[in-house]
Amino acid sequence: MNTRKTLKVNENNHLEIGGIDSAVLVEQFGTPLYVMDIEHIENMCKAYSDTLKKEYYDGRIYYASKAFCCKEIYRIIDKFGLGADAVSEGEMFTAKSAGFNLEKVIFHGNNKSHSEIEYAVTNSVGFIVIDSMDDADIVNEISKKHSKVQPVLIRVNPSVEAHTHRFIQTATPDSKFGFSIENGDALEIVKKVISLSNISLKGFHCHIGSQIFEKQGFILAIRKMTDFYKTVKENFSLYLPVINLGGGIGIWYTDEDAKYSYSDYADFVSTICSELKRCVKEKNLEIPYLILEPGRSIVGEAGITLYTVGAVKKIKGLKNYLSIDGGMFENPRYALYQAKYSAVAATSMNEELTEQYSIVGKCCESGDIITENTLLPEMKRGDLLAVLSTGAYNYSMSSNYNRNKIPTVVGVKNGKAFVMVKGQTLDDLIKLDV
Amino acid sequence: MNTRKTLKVNENNHLEIGGIDSAVLVEQFGTPLYVMDIEHIENMCKAYSDTLKKEYYDGRIYYASKAFCCKEIYRIIDKFGLGADAVSEGEMFTAKSAGFNLEKVIFHGNNKSHSEIEYAVTNSVGFIVIDSMDDADIVNEISKKHSKVQPVLIRVNPSVEAHTHRFIQTATPDSKFGFSIENGDALEIVKKVISLSNISLKGFHCHIGSQIFEKQGFILAIRKMTDFYKTVKENFSLYLPVINLGGGIGIWYTDEDAKYSYSDYADFVSTICSELKRCVKEKNLEIPYLILEPGRSIVGEAGITLYTVGAVKKIKGLKNYLSIDGGMFENPRYALYQAKYSAVAATSMNEELTEQYSIVGKCCESGDIITENTLLPEMKRGDLLAVLSTGAYNYSMSSNYNRNKIPTVVGVKNGKAFVMVKGQTLDDLIKLDV
Repeated sequence: MNTRKTLKVNENNHLEIGGIDSAVLVEQFGTPLYVMDIEHIENMCKAYSDTLKKEYYDGRIYYASKAFCCKEIYRIIDKFGLGADAVSEGEMFTAKSAGFNLEKVIFHGNNKSHSEIEYAVTNSVGFIVIDSMDDADIVNEISKKHSKVQPVLIRVNPSVEAHTHRFIQTATPDSKFGFSIENGDALEIVKKVISLSNISLKGFHCHIGSQIFEKQGFILAIRKMTDFYKTVKENFSLYLPVINLGGGIGIWYTDEDAKYSYSDYADFVSTICSELKRCVKEKNLEIPYLILEPGRSIVGEAGITLYTVGAVKKIKGLKNYLSIDGGMFENPRYALYQAKYSAVAATSMNEELTEQYSIVGKCCESGDIITENTLLPEMKRGDLLAVLSTGAYNYSMSSNYNRNKIPTVVGVKNGKAFVMVKGQTLDDLIKLDV
Repeated sequence: MNTRKTLKVNENNHLEIGGIDSAVLVEQFGTPLYVMDIEHIENMCKAYSDTLKKEYYDGRIYYASKAFCCKEIYRIIDKFGLGADAVSEGEMFTAKSAGFNLEKVIFHGNNKSHSEIEYAVTNSVGFIVIDSMDDADIVNEISKKHSKVQPVLIRVNPSVEAHTHRFIQTATPDSKFGFSIENGDALEIVKKVISLSNISLKGFHCHIGSQIFEKQGFILAIRKMTDFYKTVKENFSLYLPVINLGGGIGIWYTDEDAKYSYSDYADFVSTICSELKRCVKEKNLEIPYLILEPGRSIVGEAGITLYTVGAVKKIKGLKNYLSIDGGMFENPRYALYQAKYSAVAATSMNEELTEQYSIVGKCCESGDIITENTLLPEMKRGDLLAVLSTGAYNYSMSSNYNRNKIPTVVGVKNGKAFVMVKGQTLDDLIKLDV
């Protein structure tokens, strides 16, 4: 387990999150239950923001909403001065409803609708990221209609792909997102954008991958991006005041991943800042405002999902199935990506790990798996199971598959628990049925 | 395209569903839009029910709710005398809310909760399917508490797996569901169930796979199941009045699948009935009541999703990306299973198919694909795209990923459209946020 001050084993050998015994949380809120360790989120916001402030001239961390979106998360990141990256009207609307200033929002998307762009423009979002040729025309036209000049970035593809401990210089500009630098598409869109009078080009955005622990991927991206800034400067005499290097820094799911401390995350950002400073100087560029967009790493390890164990099926000589009262409807990441998770027996943390289990959900589908080959003590019906690092892409990807109800999300901090998102009721399931 | 009377190209070269031009539907309801061809659903209900009635002594078709669940579907199947198979309290609750008699419901699940079982027992569901050892104890205990004797089936694994055009006799009883016949677990649970006084064993259930076009898989399953009925009869002198052979019959998604007509489906059921009759006679069994549980094949081809084309990105020498205003939030089957779909240009059905596209969604994720390598005419922003055979496991698996709104579901029949499930609004997205 990736322990920290706010995630530990207490004197009853129970898992304690944010100063609350997990058994107490379950008594109060039932299972399945998404628990978010608020202090961990805050510490991550601080680690990122403080490092950027200390190690670079000017910039901001924008939280990638898609990892975990609800009103409360915007209130939390707001306290630490973060902006937010949004990918839909729904995310912008949620931020606004929480009182978040949309000027601190960047609106992304490979296929923004007319109404989404109108929402962004009329609510004065900070930047819209242009992702296709006619995207530029549409944003320009809508801005014109509202007598505005919308600041925009352009999403470019620097042909770097980074994942976990590997990074590659991709041979092809194959992506639904953005414009390839290599094949000349990126220069084409620059020409187009600067010809339009109601959008104002502020810089470029790139995103090189996810679950990254390898700094070299970012270093290579920074070199390629600053080369491109130089090319644009030389070709168009353009001053580009912003650089957005996206997100993708990894988290610990299992011991196959690195276990980063807050200072390791700070160190990662520090490396990015140093390399950018070096490249800017070397290439004689104006110092750009630096934007980073972490999502998973801010909320991922903060999340712990608590389950009650149901049927335990031991098939002799084959496998032990441990069914929990959740499943792919509230955590579809194994079904989608064969993602791995770590699980612990939340109320018998001291017991020896003698059994290996496939942890499966309650959905009527063989692929409804949370994780496989997990070592646990002997488990029985009624025991509490905690699956770790579920804060990102669990609640945000949850569905009503099999007409199961989406669980409650509670935040915990300093021994207090509060509801962030109410759990669904049976009535919620049929509310829109005619 | 798998055309039928209710799905055709009209004189404007538009796709017409249930007598309504798809462009008219979009004008009225917007996109993305789930459209359900009600007459096709009704024809499938009739094809299955009539054949079972004609070709077998006694039995019933139970619609597998998980394929597509909302109140209206229960009203439709009810008109044709179908029962329903449910896998959660949510599905039972939806059926009940639609006025569906829960005595015609079979409640399945590898990990039913105490409250779900209580809901089933107190609402007198027809059968509960026992799936693990202690499941039997719990159902018995809850039935006892309510002074009932609950009819139950036992889910067994006959070691047959069928998928599309292949079927295999599996070597292992490895499944989170049910009890293996081969390794003796099935006989063990029979012993246990008949020892409990508040549940009454009526027979066995099996489910051999999905998207099946190969009758041999069912034939083999029937042979193995009736062998097991014989074993149980000999060992326990038990009269088992019911056999439930599950579902899994396939549908057309692309031309890699068979194109079944209504009479092909009838023929499939007919084969099942013949083989069961033959086996029952040969093995000198009492004639069991036959239950089949089709889901996908009743609603799958009835569904068509209508989209508006957004960004079209042609990457020279590589790929054409066609972005639509939906994505993995409303159809996650490519992301989950790399499922293939067929798509057509809904308002230019006569045009030559000159371009190959990857159809991708608007979610901020590279894996957000609907289907790849689709031949279409030259497409541009604003065109209508129809993706076919989306009636099963699309709406039922939909999520708010990226805080996108789940689209409206409309039913169409005889030139009239009516809302089955209202589309979400922005307010729905934050309704449970605190």
